[in-house]
Amino acid sequence: MELALLYSGGKDSSLAALLLDRFYDVRCVTGTFGLTDDWEHAERAAAELEFPFERVELDRAVAEEAAETMLADGYPRNGIQRIHEHALETIANLDVDAVADGTRRDDRVPTVSRAQAQSLEDRHEIDYISPLSGFGRHAVDRLVEATFEVEQGPSEEIPKADYEGEIRALIAETHDVSVVREVFPAHDQTYVHGRND
Amino acid sequence: MELALLYSGGKDSSLAALLLDRFYDVRCVTGTFGLTDDWEHAERAAAELEFPFERVELDRAVAEEAAETMLADGYPRNGIQRIHEHALETIANLDVDAVADGTRRDDRVPTVSRAQAQSLEDRHEIDYISPLSGFGRHAVDRLVEATFEVEQGPSEEIPKADYEGEIRALIAETHDVSVVREVFPAHDQTYVHGRND
Repeated sequence: MELALLYSGGKDSSLAALLLDRFYDVRCVTGTFGLTDDWEHAERAAAELEFPFERVELDRAVAEEAAETMLADGYPRNGIQRIHEHALETIANLDVDAVADGTRRDDRVPTVSRAQAQSLEDRHEIDYISPLSGFGRHAVDRLVEATFEVEQGPSEEIPKADYEGEIRALIAETHDVSVVREVFPAHDQTYVHGRND
Repeated sequence: MELALLYSGGKDSSLAALLLDRFYDVRCVTGTFGLTDDWEHAERAAAELEFPFERVELDRAVAEEAAETMLADGYPRNGIQRIHEHALETIANLDVDAVADGTRRDDRVPTVSRAQAQSLEDRHEIDYISPLSGFGRHAVDRLVEATFEVEQGPSEEIPKADYEGEIRALIAETHDVSVVREVFPAHDQTYVHGRND
């Protein structure tokens, strides 16, 4: 069965890929608004884990709308949620039996409710799978440590293809760098450099 | 890492075993109140899937309390939930790094909320994992069909080591068989006879 996994090159989506690999032909898929080349980091991480990679184009209007939401809110949560939903809808249009993402039980954002999951499944006639939603933060950290070579550090310095890099770039086009820092407070990110198991 | 999986020999807990096998040393564990020998069905299914098996004793007082709840309710849901929580607490006392069960996203019972999961983890210093909670009913059915030889039929005729058989026996000790049928309406169960993948 063919499965498209929303993939960033980070530890969560990399772990999701290995879990799903037992049962599906997993393709790592990264959405891009065309604002940065950050998607190349995901392509490289997928190659290191030996999964096929695909890039899909996301709708620039969604990025602009999400950036406006983040600026109005002063924090990224609702904007990131909006982009995640758009990215899931986008890969659900691919020719696959199932789509998946790396959301965990303890994540605050993005989240996909049971009702949202069933709506996505019914409208696209696919399965939606969140293989990490039964794993807590501690369990994921232990598995990651046992499985991957991970680089961890401040979000701005870690090569990663999540949506944050593109929205930072979009906001920086029209606002001061201090505004970007206000919306995206300092936090750590991870990037997977390969397997050690 | 050592993991104890609550195991019935049915399709859900069998699929959970294969998913977890990628990352854990999985032991299939079946709880019994000592009322029937149904646990032997789980032992046989685990052997066919080539997983180690362990039987643990559950507290007879919990079975009696659950049976009373089911008789008062007229349906099994709350009693089954109570037994599942007791079984999870019991295996959390084993010498393992993690415990798991086969609950799915679309299950109504048993369910383990995020708060219950975190409480179990904190009190026992283990991880609690529900590897199927990110899979809907349709996705599970497709994976089961691709993976196992399954026997399906009315609950009374399928050999399986869930709690239902023991509680039926307990109620039948003191009540008419019609009472048992009233509490447990006719439904289908599954039993895994081996792998076909």
